[in-house]
Amino acid sequence: MKLGVIGLGTVGMNVIKILTEEKDRRNKEIGDIEILKVCDIKSDNSMGYDFTDNYKEILDDPRIDTVVELIGGVGAAYDISKSTLNSKKNLVTANKHLLALHGKELFSLAEKNNVKLQYEASVGGGIPVISPIKENLFVNNFKNIRGILNGTCNYILTKMEEGMSYSKALEDAQLKGYAEADPTFDVKGVDTAHKISILAHLAWGELKEFSEISIVGIDGLTKNDIEIAKSNGLRYKLLGEANFDGCELSIRVAPVAVKKDELLYSVNGVYNAVELDGNYTGKTIFYGEGAGGNATATAVISDIYKINLGG
Amino acid sequence: MKLGVIGLGTVGMNVIKILTEEKDRRNKEIGDIEILKVCDIKSDNSMGYDFTDNYKEILDDPRIDTVVELIGGVGAAYDISKSTLNSKKNLVTANKHLLALHGKELFSLAEKNNVKLQYEASVGGGIPVISPIKENLFVNNFKNIRGILNGTCNYILTKMEEGMSYSKALEDAQLKGYAEADPTFDVKGVDTAHKISILAHLAWGELKEFSEISIVGIDGLTKNDIEIAKSNGLRYKLLGEANFDGCELSIRVAPVAVKKDELLYSVNGVYNAVELDGNYTGKTIFYGEGAGGNATATAVISDIYKINLGG
Repeated sequence: MKLGVIGLGTVGMNVIKILTEEKDRRNKEIGDIEILKVCDIKSDNSMGYDFTDNYKEILDDPRIDTVVELIGGVGAAYDISKSTLNSKKNLVTANKHLLALHGKELFSLAEKNNVKLQYEASVGGGIPVISPIKENLFVNNFKNIRGILNGTCNYILTKMEEGMSYSKALEDAQLKGYAEADPTFDVKGVDTAHKISILAHLAWGELKEFSEISIVGIDGLTKNDIEIAKSNGLRYKLLGEANFDGCELSIRVAPVAVKKDELLYSVNGVYNAVELDGNYTGKTIFYGEGAGGNATATAVISDIYKINLGG
Repeated sequence: MKLGVIGLGTVGMNVIKILTEEKDRRNKEIGDIEILKVCDIKSDNSMGYDFTDNYKEILDDPRIDTVVELIGGVGAAYDISKSTLNSKKNLVTANKHLLALHGKELFSLAEKNNVKLQYEASVGGGIPVISPIKENLFVNNFKNIRGILNGTCNYILTKMEEGMSYSKALEDAQLKGYAEADPTFDVKGVDTAHKISILAHLAWGELKEFSEISIVGIDGLTKNDIEIAKSNGLRYKLLGEANFDGCELSIRVAPVAVKKDELLYSVNGVYNAVELDGNYTGKTIFYGEGAGGNATATAVISDIYKINLGG
């Protein structure tokens, strides 16, 4: 298997690092995976691999069979993804924004070109959730999916419950590197909406038009709201929720006051959790680090591994 | 893919039922899976499929490529498993007892005969945990695995915390069908030891001699122990724990007083949870119904699906 990796940010760099460092120890799983070329706008993280700042060199390289897209967004990433699939290369992506907006087109391009499109890292960072739904829980008729899908928001809410104001908690999250300089996508619930939309597509086969998703973020929550919830034994969590009533799929994102006896109540800080309610398995919950370079990199690597296996 | 199913208890019956009922809706995943023959000591649950009470008829049937062993124990199941693999048929099993005792031999038989041995249902019932470790989290250097792996014990402990004595709680569990008439394997921690041993094998590649596992059950716990823990904000859970210190693997099973701020504290009743601590992903937890015919059947079906895919 010959890889081209596009995007050498925290996740990309860790994918390369782990694939390189674990090659011998994990020879059975990743031994024959070869990184042929890496691409970024700057060359700082190329770790000695053949580097280019022009992604077309990866797309046009006939030796490369699988492209790992880790630049994010829906600009160049959209072009790269389409070109990858159209040149009959497999695509591994962590890009939830891209899949929530252009998933229909990309999944059908993958099918048309008989190549694989894997995206474990797009939801839940290092938590295995895409493949367990696709490969283990698929036989269920799902009733409901709920998830704490954005570590930034969950961290801010945890800090607010500890007494910080919203703006202080956001500042703290930015200082610790949990929130970006422009936190809009996180705090307004857009990132959560991308992720719950991808999970709903997996569970019910329908990719909702993004404009049909009702989205409320955490930026309207006050310390007072949090205090009132707390005094009632409740805790606000920004939940992505998808429900299927047997006929129609509805998706919404909103801060929800969760009861103490629910497991989601105890999911704090930057942690994420996804809860699936299936007719056969009942409630299943997956919990772990929803972000972070190393954790997310393992998800990307599991996708590469599955494609290498032919899955 | 042509199946022979041996053992038509609750799990076996539900495997057949779900494969039959979901065939059309889940055509893409299970559409070409055909149940050729089913076997049990009695014919009550054969659901119209070709029935035999002699499992050799399944082992000797050259059309059958995959045997699903769901009778449990290490008597006939051991013979069936060896014969299956030696006749170059794939094996799907939910049998933790068998794998914990004879896993080494069976895994090497599968490798030698170039067939698959899948066992998702052996740990955690309907919770996907075997394949996420094998296919998603494998690249980690694991430090530690802890699990609430026996629903019967967890139910009894929950009831004891609600005020019941041990014997009353056990009686209640038996009445509700959560505990067997002879609950020895559950309450003495043996079942938990089987399961943590299988998880440790997955994480570190070493299947511990079963006699080397230190096992303490819940049958020595008194209402008083539970009360003292409770008054200190703690809750007893029967944990299977596996640790690797970089050099040696140690496994133990024992009731452990878990702190309130740990997620495992909130895993109550018949629910199970597995917590893995990996150097890349940090803590990941899988939670859900650890038993029950339907839940466990979905795990068996996911194994059948993976073999059908070639995985």
